[in-house]
Formats: sequence, C-alpha cells, structure tokens
Amino acid sequence: MADKAQIQDAIKTQGEVVRKLKTEKASKEHIDEEVAKLLKLKAQIGGDEGKHQFTLKTAKGTRDYNPKQMAIRERVFNTIIRCFKRHGAETIDTPVFELKETLTGKYGEDSKLIYDLKDQGGELLSLRYDLTVPFARYLAMNKITNIKRYHIAKVYRRDNPAMTRGRYREFYQCDFDIAGQYDPMIPDAECLKIVHEILSELELGDFCIKVNDRRILDGMFAVCGVPDDKFRTICSTVDKLDKMSWEVVKSEMVNEKGLSEEAADQIGQYVSMQGGMDLAERLLQDAKMSQSKQACAGLTDMKQLFSYLQLFQVTDKVVFDLSLARGLDYYTGVIYEAILTQTGPVPVAATQNGAGEKAEEGVSVGSVAGGGRYDGLVGMFDPKGRKVPCVGVSIGIERVFSIMEQKAEASAQKVRTTETQVMVASAQRNLLNERLRLTAELWNAGIKAEVMYKKNPKLLSQLQHCEDSGIPLVAILGEQELKDGVVKLRTVHSREEVDVSRAELAEEIKKRTSDV
Amino acid sequence: MADKAQIQDAIKTQGEVVRKLKTEKASKEHIDEEVAKLLKLKAQIGGDEGKHQFTLKTAKGTRDYNPKQMAIRERVFNTIIRCFKRHGAETIDTPVFELKETLTGKYGEDSKLIYDLKDQGGELLSLRYDLTVPFARYLAMNKITNIKRYHIAKVYRRDNPAMTRGRYREFYQCDFDIAGQYDPMIPDAECLKIVHEILSELELGDFCIKVNDRRILDGMFAVCGVPDDKFRTICSTVDKLDKMSWEVVKSEMVNEKGLSEEAADQIGQYVSMQGGMDLAERLLQDAKMSQSKQACAGLTDMKQLFSYLQLFQVTDKVVFDLSLARGLDYYTGVIYEAILTQTGPVPVAATQNGAGEKAEEGVSVGSVAGGGRYDGLVGMFDPKGRKVPCVGVSIGIERVFSIMEQKAEASAQKVRTTETQVMVASAQRNLLNERLRLTAELWNAGIKAEVMYKKNPKLLSQLQHCEDSGIPLVAILGEQELKDGVVKLRTVHSREEVDVSRAELAEEIKKRTSDV
Repeated sequence: MADKAQIQDAIKTQGEVVRKLKTEKASKEHIDEEVAKLLKLKAQIGGDEGKHQFTLKTAKGTRDYNPKQMAIRERVFNTIIRCFKRHGAETIDTPVFELKETLTGKYGEDSKLIYDLKDQGGELLSLRYDLTVPFARYLAMNKITNIKRYHIAKVYRRDNPAMTRGRYREFYQCDFDIAGQYDPMIPDAECLKIVHEILSELELGDFCIKVNDRRILDGMFAVCGVPDDKFRTICSTVDKLDKMSWEVVKSEMVNEKGLSEEAADQIGQYVSMQGGMDLAERLLQDAKMSQSKQACAGLTDMKQLFSYLQLFQVTDKVVFDLSLARGLDYYTGVIYEAILTQTGPVPVAATQNGAGEKAEEGVSVGSVAGGGRYDGLVGMFDPKGRKVPCVGVSIGIERVFSIMEQKAEASAQKVRTTETQVMVASAQRNLLNERLRLTAELWNAGIKAEVMYKKNPKLLSQLQHCEDSGIPLVAILGEQELKDGVVKLRTVHSREEVDVSRAELAEEIKKRTSDV
Repeated sequence: MADKAQIQDAIKTQGEVVRKLKTEKASKEHIDEEVAKLLKLKAQIGGDEGKHQFTLKTAKGTRDYNPKQMAIRERVFNTIIRCFKRHGAETIDTPVFELKETLTGKYGEDSKLIYDLKDQGGELLSLRYDLTVPFARYLAMNKITNIKRYHIAKVYRRDNPAMTRGRYREFYQCDFDIAGQYDPMIPDAECLKIVHEILSELELGDFCIKVNDRRILDGMFAVCGVPDDKFRTICSTVDKLDKMSWEVVKSEMVNEKGLSEEAADQIGQYVSMQGGMDLAERLLQDAKMSQSKQACAGLTDMKQLFSYLQLFQVTDKVVFDLSLARGLDYYTGVIYEAILTQTGPVPVAATQNGAGEKAEEGVSVGSVAGGGRYDGLVGMFDPKGRKVPCVGVSIGIERVFSIMEQKAEASAQKVRTTETQVMVASAQRNLLNERLRLTAELWNAGIKAEVMYKKNPKLLSQLQHCEDSGIPLVAILGEQELKDGVVKLRTVHSREEVDVSRAELAEEIKKRTSDV
C-alpha cells in the first residue's frame, strides 16, 4: 500500500465524478464506467473508502437463531408454557437491565460476570444475571405476597463459555416460581410434578429428579462435626459428588478445607444414601441425625413431600439423595435437580444453562432442571425485611434446545420453519393476477398460503419450493380451471391431483391439513 | 448521626454476639433479644449496617409487565404472529447486543441514543437500536439472499421518552420483512396486505394506510427546483406535514432551509395531493413530474402496486399521499405508514413506538405501522457490497398495547391472567390428599386445574379465588362424593351444581370450557 493518502484522495475525486454524473442523470454506461474506476481504487486501499470494514459476526458468546432453531425453540416453549398454564401460572416480564445496585450482593463472587452498561450519564445499569433476583425485586416493589408465575427470558453472563457445548453469554432461563405463605411442601411438590410433566412431554429420554433439603445438609454437617463456619465451603465440596468420586471429594475436604478425617468419613456415609420416604423415616430414627433439630425439620418435611409426590404419581422418578447440595446461597429448604439418565449419544452440553446455573455451582452435566426453596430473598429487597416464602424451578432450556437440535439433525425428518398449508401456483404464463387473487381469497379464509413473487415462475420451481419447505399442498390455476371455476389441488408427496371447486377450496385445504 | 463510625463498630460487635449465639444454638429468646439490640443500632445509622438501601425501582424508561399486561401482550402477539405465519413467514432471533461497529453509521445523529455496554475487556458492545440493522447484518453474514421473516423483540434507545404516553427506553419492535430479488411491487403489496389484515383483526378502529415512494419524492424535489444537496433536509421538513400546517412547513423550508419561495409553493401543490391509481396516472401525465425519470419510475410502480392492492381487496384503506416522507435514510422505494383515523377517545400514546420509530422521524401521532423498501442496507454489510433488496413493515406494537390496555381498563370485562379451567375444592376438612389426587388426575388429562395450598381452606375462599381470577368451574369433593365416585361440578357464574362421575370429569370440563 504505497501511498495510502494519495489513493484516498483519488477515491475522493473519483467519488465526486460519480456523484456528479448521477446528479446529471448521465447515461448508465458512463456512470457504470466511472463507478468501476472508483471500485478499483477502493480495492487498492482494501475497503470502503479506506474505512474500517465491518466485522461480520455476533458478539462473543452470543448467536443468532436461524429459522430452524427458532422452530425448535417455539416447539419447546409451547410444551413448557402449556404445562405452566395447566398449573394456573401467570407470567410477568421485567426489563433486560436493572439498576446495578439491585444485582449487587446477590451472586457472591460471580458478580464479576455481570455485564455493566457504560455510564452515559444517569443511572448505573447492569444486564440481568438471572430471573430470580428481578422476580424478588418485582415482588418487593409491588408488595406482592402471593403469586404463581413463570418467566421465560434471556439472561447475561460475561463468562467464558464453551459454546461448542451449547453454553453462551446470552441464554434463556425458564423459571416457574410459587411465592406465598402456604402449608408446608404443597407448592414444593407441585414444582416437582411440573418438572416431571415437562421432562416427560419433551421426550428427552429417561430422567431422575434428586431431592434434598438445605436443613438436612446443615444438620448432617453439624452432627458430623463440621464447624459452623465451614458449612458453606464443605457444602460446595459435597456439590461436586456428581462429577467426582468420593475419594477426590474427601481429599478436598480434608486436605484443602481442613476438615478432620473422622468428620469427612461420617459425611461420606450419609452422602452415599439414596432412597425415598423410607430413607427419611430411617434418618429420623438415626442416632446422630436425630440430634439436629434442623435435620429433623427437613426430614419431616421430606416425608410430607414424598406423601404428596405419591398422590401426584411421580415417585417413580424422584430420589431423596443426601449428596445433592446445589450451589446457590439463597436456598433455605428443599432443593432438587433433574438429570437425564439415558446413556448413549446424549449430547454433552450446557451445564451452565443446564439448570440455568453455572457449572461451578455444581450442576451435573446431565442436569436439565433445578430449583428449590428460597424464603429469604424477597426480604432482602423489602425496606422492612418482610419475607415472602418462595419455591421455584428453572428448566435448563438451552440444554433442551441442544438436545432437540441434535435429535432433529439425527432424524431424517425435516424441521419445517413455516406452517404454510398451500402454495398457489400456475403452469401457464400471465396468470400472476389470478394467483394473487386466489392467494388473497385463501388468506382471508384463514389459510396459510404462499405465492411466488414472480410474474411467470416455472411450475417446477414452484413445486421445488414446496418440497424444500414442506408445504403439503399446491393449488394450481390454469386457463381451463379458471373457466371451470375450479382449482387443481395437488398433494405434494403423492403427486395426486383433484379438481376442487373454488368455493370449497379453503374448506378442503383445512380438512387435508388438519393433522399437520 | 453523632458518630457514625462508633455506631458501626457497635453494630459489628453486636453482630458477632448474635452470630456466636446462633452458632451455639442458644435459646430463641436470647438470640431474639440480641438481634433486637442489633436492629436498634442499625436503625440509628439508617439502614442495613450502614449500607445503602436498595432503590426499589426499574431503570429509567423501563417497566415491568404485570400479569394483566402480559395477558394483553400475548393476545396481541398471537394475532400478529398468526398473520405473519399465514403469509408463510419464518422467524429468527438475534442477540440483544451487537458489536458497536455494527450499529455505527446506521442511525445518523440518533446514534447518540444507542446504549453502549461498559468496556469490561474484550469487544465493544451496544444494545440493538432496532431490528432492521441486525437483520441486515444477519443476511450479509449468512449470505442469505431470500427470506421472508418476522422478528418480535425488544430494542433500546437512550431517549427521554414520555412514559405517560406509553413511550419507553426499552420497547418492542415487531417487524416483517421480505428480502430477495423479485418482480416489482409484489412483496411490497403483500406488506400492505399484512398491515391491513393485522389492523383489521386487532379491531383498533378505522385506519388508513398512506403510501408514497422515495423516488417520487426525490423526483418531485428535482422538478420543483430543490437543489440536490437539499433533498434530505427538505424531505424531513415535508415529513412534518402530518403534525403541522403547510404554512409552518413552508416557512421552515424558506426561512430555515433557504429554499426559494417559488420552489416551496410548487412542492406545496404536490404534497396536498392524495388519491389512488388515478393520481399516479395523472402525475405520469403531469408536465413537470413527467420530466423526472425517477418520479416516473416511482409512479409506474405505484400504479402497479395499486393494481395488486385491488387484487388483494385492500384499496379501501390505502391512499397514495405525496406528503408522506418518513424519516429513515435507508428507504429507496415505496414507503408507507398506517394511522388510526378514529376520532374520539383514542389514546395519545407511543409515537416513538407507534411505528417502532422516533417521533423526530416523523411518525404521526396516530401511527400504528410503517415501513418501506430499503434495497441498499444489506450491501452496507457485505464485504463486496452485494445488495439484497428488502421491503418490510414494522407494527407499532407498544402503541397497540397501550390502546388495548386502555380498552381493557374502560370495559367492564375482566382480563384473565390465567387459563385455569377448574378449581379443585372441598367444603370439608381433611380432604387435602383427595384434592391433590384429583388435581393430578386432571393435570394428567390435560386440564388446567388449580388447588389451594392449604390443608383446610374455607370453601368461601376457594370460591372467592375463582371469582377473582375468572376460573369458570369448581370441582367440589366431599365424603359423600368420594363414596359415590362422583365430583360436584359447580359453574361459578350460575352457581349451578351437578354430580359428574369421576371417570367423565375431564371430558365434561373440556366440553364446558371449550368456548373459553
């Protein structure tokens, strides 16, 4: 690039020549000629008048959803929302950014992952990190003490995600929460019933819902001799049991966290326990465990929970598992996490989004839902600290998307990105107006119809579009059909054609596509 | 606040006392006593350990959507999406933030309204300002030359909106665009058909769609003697004709923009013209207008457009109006804008969101949709400048929400925020388990059912909840019903009760709520 400034000057001059010609409405040839010169100069300098070329990409950790991904996304959302509505939930929405101070002090050291907005004068703002804190802010701000709501929206974490594994900096959370002072474990049981329904309906393969209680964990730590100030750190070590062996976890407890060998071994005995209501009953009789009031409260509630789960007929998938810890600080009671148990080609994806939480928070790789009771969070926002007990569940929807996308990829079946029922076509020339007229008739009758935006498209290309986008029917117009007041209705896959009277066409299309 | 530091020290000490007592599992009375002391100290210093109290608000210019607003939003979205799908549209989604440079140079001086993210290391990012630029980026990045897509999502403008009039810094845009090289005016006509369908279905009252063409405007300016370099500024003055009288507009042209009185008067004659295909024909014969090749091209296309609109049966609402200018620079051909013409209590709201654009861009107060052809935008993103012709429309959905909300407010009819079909209730005590069992049966049968999370709720409060949230049916269980294998099905509004056998309950509920 010998003399950049010189070329830039030449570009400027040449640009003026072109503009002048255009103003003077010079001949197309003349303008084209001069434009070619201009482009040649621009090419020398490598770009648009030497300006920086656009970087054609999305921001790091984000992605576009193409129509196919959107079709899958819509299907998943519909299944989930249908379930939430079946359980009488309302929905709310909150802004994508909050006052920075609203988020401050809610995420511990993960606060460093919060996206801040630039200070452009005015309030200091941050992108929401999850939907739970905005929900708590919403409840406190509007003094709401009772609500059953779902919220599906994107959240933002300035993480270094493994995008190949379906983890992103912008990703969906899909939360269902019940706020209010109710009799113990009834809303909690409904949350588990919801997880059961959604995972069954999505057909992701076999799954298992692990349940535990923060009070049982804390009580267990207490009776095993863990010092009070080590509860949290030992808890987060226990949380790794879904990814590491007991030996590794024990070693971390003893060597890194300074726990006594004896205490660790006692914990080891408990966290290997899995069961149902029977286990809760046994532990209530356990010599050590029964010494902790907290543990007893948790175990009594666990029994109650299982009795409700029996009524809901979901105990087949629910396991009381003392090794389940979950990372978030704000849980105060029951906690749960659903994992896919199917071995085989289940994609390794989205542990972050798996349960709407970070891997460090201890969500296992196969996790697709998680949640628990958090009775203190709303109180953090209330000026008088008034508590609103809450229990909720987050569906790991990004991971569900990944699985669904891979399933679609693997299956022979094409994902349709439109719902078009019929293509209005013609084999003959000069029938554009007739095609448009018929298309409008169908639209007005509520039929999803497409027509090619060409005066004289080839029949083959019209049929090809149907094949490509899965349109099941073609309504073919010709001079003869127009004369007879009929339309040739062609079934794309069978190539069958029948004449249908124009008056009955919409009904016939509805009938033939009612199963689509 | 005599000695803040002293009090803070006292708070710290007292906090340690409380923590110690808790650790030692001291008596509740003792802990409560010391907590009370702690709270007293905190009260002196005014807040949570002297920390700043949360400001309980959403960021300036943003709002939460409560369940009622969400129910209205969902209804509006459904109507609009149904229409888009009827026309064979796919949908895509793009991230909420883009590389800053993607947005640079697209919005002229409105770029100052773009929200930038803080530089936290890495790329410089900005929140999207509209959906059109990300759409163009998406097309160029994926080398897509043909697509019909809609996109409904929030965009962000650091404006000073009149929130009382329904204008926000975070608001929805609802765009439908057709990209591709097609025969003239066919996709353009479909966009207008879509506006017609949506506004009719939303029942917002009478409306009118104004149409014009950038080439007609530019040709008109040329033949009226407007210097080339004043086209854009005179165009934006013309754009004010929907809010100001011709006298004011003319004065701005002459006195502020330095246009000759004569040129202004000539413009004045043209911009007062309204009509249909006839007007386009007349102007093609117009001595002056016919001198401009551009204008002629625009007028010929306008005739063509009206012929397609006749086939689509929408000419009743479409007016060719030479005063329609629209502000955005990127339009290259046909432009249009829909306004509500109903006089009376139409709320004055959301000119910004009215057509997804700013008031300064010249959207009239009653505007509810707008758009046009922009054949150059995608080329701005393509490294080789390859153009993808596009035409699209943006539904002013925030304004539609405002109108719908006010309509709901004004009407006696309650907006339901849930879709619950039946409440499972009991008049007797100790039937919680039976209620839960029946509720699960109904859920499993696909019925939307609620049950109170109380062991022994009063029948009255169960019925009251139905009244409050519009649940039409109550399934009442009692000892006798359980014995008989029936459920008492009560219709809330009529208070009628019939016994329905348990096996037929789900079907009976479906039948009775099929019209809801």
